[in-house]
Amino acid sequence: MTVLGIDPGTAATGYGVVRRVEGPRQAVLVECGVIRTRPRDTLAGRLLEIFEGVTELIERHRPEVLAVEDVFYARNVRTTVVLGHARGVVLLAGARAGVHIHEYPPAEIKKAVVGSGGATKAQVQFMLMRLLRLQSVPHPSDAADGVAAALTYCLTAPATRRALVAAAAPARAEPGPRAARV
Amino acid sequence: MTVLGIDPGTAATGYGVVRRVEGPRQAVLVECGVIRTRPRDTLAGRLLEIFEGVTELIERHRPEVLAVEDVFYARNVRTTVVLGHARGVVLLAGARAGVHIHEYPPAEIKKAVVGSGGATKAQVQFMLMRLLRLQSVPHPSDAADGVAAALTYCLTAPATRRALVAAAAPARAEPGPRAARV
Repeated sequence: MTVLGIDPGTAATGYGVVRRVEGPRQAVLVECGVIRTRPRDTLAGRLLEIFEGVTELIERHRPEVLAVEDVFYARNVRTTVVLGHARGVVLLAGARAGVHIHEYPPAEIKKAVVGSGGATKAQVQFMLMRLLRLQSVPHPSDAADGVAAALTYCLTAPATRRALVAAAAPARAEPGPRAARV
Repeated sequence: MTVLGIDPGTAATGYGVVRRVEGPRQAVLVECGVIRTRPRDTLAGRLLEIFEGVTELIERHRPEVLAVEDVFYARNVRTTVVLGHARGVVLLAGARAGVHIHEYPPAEIKKAVVGSGGATKAQVQFMLMRLLRLQSVPHPSDAADGVAAALTYCLTAPATRRALVAAAAPARAEPGPRAARV
């Protein structure tokens, strides 16, 4: 099963493709990155780029599930509403392709990946490395957020969660990067 | 020139197609109506219906311009953000079709159609009847809002505005419905 995770944004939409596999690793990161739009473009033009980018990812990876981070309520309502526009075209891309869509509030993603809804960004990134056995943190952070959304779907399916955490356990004794000690 | 006006909404997206014509009428209403979605559907499913509805209107009427009402900032931020999702897929439909997109805040539409940004809904509807020489108010009100957005584009092109207002002037002496006297 392949899961496409998306962290929507008008300027940068992060994504991560995670595949559940047989064997001790259980889940592997296939690809992650960012769909960037140009600030000088109109809002409609930027939405078109996001929609086409997500549609291209769906066509290429054929995910069964689209995991989308819910809106982060910024202090500036205008910012939040514009983010809603970007999220709308992401959900549309999934609906058009007939992919199952799961939406997760930011705190739920943190809770699934780290175990606490109040976890820091660094803690989430550290656990992404552990659980997916990566050599480095997915970069940039928007891409990591997309990976975290995809992994949240995998982790909240109970059987997968147990296997992933068990597989990651031995690595926990090793010293982690500074960021993770915060 | 044909203008498609849209008042986006997750439950009901109103639309109006207005065509500028030669002769004393200047602008005629071609079609108006509402794209309705089912409350029991998922947000993604409703966005798909709105997107397909707007795309179908663009393919059928081939408008040069898409006039979209800007977000009404509801007291409930969640409501406003969901509205942003619907508006996002409307803008996307226009961008995909290569149509020129103009966005108008609600007050700007009222000012263009009635002459005052604080005009009532009834005043806007009365002026739609006058300017487009309709026998009755476009129904339901979401459809009227779509028509008003389309007409705003026509009215804010200076030459068209002068001609439309001049053509509507004789009718102003006639007694209007109660609502318009407010």
